[in-house]
Amino acid sequence: MRLSEFFLPTLKETPSEAQIASHRYMLRAGMIRQSSAGIYSWLPLGFRVLKKIEQIVREEQDAAGAQEVLMPTIQPADLWRESGRYDDYGKEMLRITDRHDRDMLYGPTNEEQITEIFRASARSYRDVPRMLYHIQWKFRDEVRPRFGIMRGREFLMKDAYSFDLDYESSKRAYNKMFVAYLKTFERLGVKAIPLRADTGPIGGDLSHEFVVLADTGESEVFCHKDLLDMPTPGEIDYSDDLQPIVDQWTSVYAAADDKHVPSECPVPEADLVTRRGIEVGHIFHFGDKYSRPMGAKVAGPDGQEVTLQMGSYGIGVSRLVGGIIEASHDDDGIIWPKSVAPFNAGIINLKPGDPDCDAACEALEAQLSGAGLDVLIDDTDERAGAKFAKMDLIGLPWQAVIGPRGVKNGIIEVKRRRTGEKEELSTEAAVNKIVGFE
Amino acid sequence: MRLSEFFLPTLKETPSEAQIASHRYMLRAGMIRQSSAGIYSWLPLGFRVLKKIEQIVREEQDAAGAQEVLMPTIQPADLWRESGRYDDYGKEMLRITDRHDRDMLYGPTNEEQITEIFRASARSYRDVPRMLYHIQWKFRDEVRPRFGIMRGREFLMKDAYSFDLDYESSKRAYNKMFVAYLKTFERLGVKAIPLRADTGPIGGDLSHEFVVLADTGESEVFCHKDLLDMPTPGEIDYSDDLQPIVDQWTSVYAAADDKHVPSECPVPEADLVTRRGIEVGHIFHFGDKYSRPMGAKVAGPDGQEVTLQMGSYGIGVSRLVGGIIEASHDDDGIIWPKSVAPFNAGIINLKPGDPDCDAACEALEAQLSGAGLDVLIDDTDERAGAKFAKMDLIGLPWQAVIGPRGVKNGIIEVKRRRTGEKEELSTEAAVNKIVGFE
Repeated sequence: MRLSEFFLPTLKETPSEAQIASHRYMLRAGMIRQSSAGIYSWLPLGFRVLKKIEQIVREEQDAAGAQEVLMPTIQPADLWRESGRYDDYGKEMLRITDRHDRDMLYGPTNEEQITEIFRASARSYRDVPRMLYHIQWKFRDEVRPRFGIMRGREFLMKDAYSFDLDYESSKRAYNKMFVAYLKTFERLGVKAIPLRADTGPIGGDLSHEFVVLADTGESEVFCHKDLLDMPTPGEIDYSDDLQPIVDQWTSVYAAADDKHVPSECPVPEADLVTRRGIEVGHIFHFGDKYSRPMGAKVAGPDGQEVTLQMGSYGIGVSRLVGGIIEASHDDDGIIWPKSVAPFNAGIINLKPGDPDCDAACEALEAQLSGAGLDVLIDDTDERAGAKFAKMDLIGLPWQAVIGPRGVKNGIIEVKRRRTGEKEELSTEAAVNKIVGFE
Repeated sequence: MRLSEFFLPTLKETPSEAQIASHRYMLRAGMIRQSSAGIYSWLPLGFRVLKKIEQIVREEQDAAGAQEVLMPTIQPADLWRESGRYDDYGKEMLRITDRHDRDMLYGPTNEEQITEIFRASARSYRDVPRMLYHIQWKFRDEVRPRFGIMRGREFLMKDAYSFDLDYESSKRAYNKMFVAYLKTFERLGVKAIPLRADTGPIGGDLSHEFVVLADTGESEVFCHKDLLDMPTPGEIDYSDDLQPIVDQWTSVYAAADDKHVPSECPVPEADLVTRRGIEVGHIFHFGDKYSRPMGAKVAGPDGQEVTLQMGSYGIGVSRLVGGIIEASHDDDGIIWPKSVAPFNAGIINLKPGDPDCDAACEALEAQLSGAGLDVLIDDTDERAGAKFAKMDLIGLPWQAVIGPRGVKNGIIEVKRRRTGEKEELSTEAAVNKIVGFE
């Protein structure tokens, strides 16, 4: 992609309304544009990151055995009257009346809807266990939306739901999602830890939230230092017993500030670390909270009707874009982890129009593209300093600078964004460096 | 994927509310489930088709040089007051009041929103031409939603928008989309023809709709028989002049029934064909209809301000699922074109639990998967007739039947869904047949 043709409306100044790094950088890097309070359009650079995160979340859900569906954004109010949550939910629910005066709503979550779908088709114990998920826009009419897409009103969420015959099987579904979350966040290039959590308006008896550790996080997290070094499980066979992995991750002390009572903390002071965190996932086991009032049951092996055990499992896909930036940036801009970077590398052409520079840029791009990488070439006629600043701001993992002097000597300056480390390399060595990067 | 684990709630009986083939088969094949009038959930089988169509549409938009963004579903009413369409739109617009009593709406289309985004960043003639698109859910509060997802209220649409300095350049954008549409529909495996169209509430001076030809289509289409055999252009360089291709396709007579006046038709009766069609795309050139009232302008090369020329280009992504079924089905069920089939092949295990049959199924699946195909194995204990009927209903391009007698003789029965043609083949020949199929 050529920057001269790419829709990338970067801003030189920091917008005054942006209070946190991710909001500032997403606006400045032309990733998003506000449509109204807490509602944003995703411009090409932001959209690319959003899609990469979505795809990693999808692949790990699929690996765990969940099947993708897509429920609509607009739901009938009657569904929520069945569970009793229509009146409970308050003003955060966007309530809508259609042209025939029917009560509708923009779904803030989908427990009722998926329970309706499942009860309509599942008949016997052979129809469970099942895990279904979708990645769909949700709406919560926050009274004071802020922090950009981190606390917006319209947001993209992955929500999965499990249906099981009994508690033991349901716990296995919970464990699958627990492990899938560890793997998802690792692939996204962030350190996320599980915390025992309250179940809140979703309900249930067991719940963990996953928080990304970032100095600028919204809340304080206390944990045993061992948790920070705990290795994410490698190759997983999801038909195995995953309880040992879950036990390993939950046996170590970890608590958000609302749960942490210093006088009762079992961790010696020397081993206790305090960090800040951003909630990006939340998993719930809630048994029959929805299946009982909504009548989601199947015939068991003995012919007796059994009310299904359920859980729900959310990941804030759009929120993660901000969470990753909070965890990975410096004073010059964003530093994307490789797996979610909108382009793998940026090429800065210091003298566009110079046939040798143009040819060198195209040759490098062709080799990187040939290796499956996405490349952005800055071929604009801005001055060099502005080009360097913009490339730092948008945070691609690698920058390659091509100018007349280097071209004459067969040299490309390659900079790694995360470390700032620069090397002068031949084209071949530059390609190997960038392609070989893990 | 094993059918015993796949969430595929097929129906044996035809739902009485379904009046057309696509609606009937989508419900019976467990592709969708109605949530409320004109609003559907996409279950795993339907979701797979929807995603395949979306991806083909995306690839052809990208190839034409359009850049993907994502605008929110909920828009502020004030945007539509700027263009004057807020009051015009009538009851089909789903109007919403948020908790702070602000007027919002669920977008039925995005001309205003994209114009706002573009005017905020484009400054000079160097910032054009640009084409931006998104694939997002829309809402039109139809007074009488019907025909399933073909005329639903919440529907998935690809809408692209072009921004240009003058009419000539804008016409080039229009031509790019015209050609991209020909290529898109060909890849989707349907015959679609462009018809000169009215511009309706979108406005403008030039418009074509694209209709998929299907015996069960919603409206009558009259055209010269040459149009049906016109070859879709091959490899396209979108920087070329595409006017000759557009001229070729638009010089031949084609009209919908509301435009066709028999006494004025220039085509000799022997050359005129009458078919039925389903609208699946619509492209518009509307000049400054939105850019003028909304002030979307840039400085031209001479420093003078120029109001941008615009067009918009829609494809009904969710509607296409129904359109393809209308164009491709028989009395037994759906017949998916290869490019959008939810799985490439189905394997019917006639005796699950029999070690030889199970092993033969797994061996075939492994070879097909290894070649990059998606496979569904019917490993349930239903009777053979029900399995054959279900496999015909869901319409996978190939069926492979594996039973004890065949296994003993090293034989698999392979059936091509479209023709019904059956062959007894060795595993190797079956794999070659299915993988090699174009």
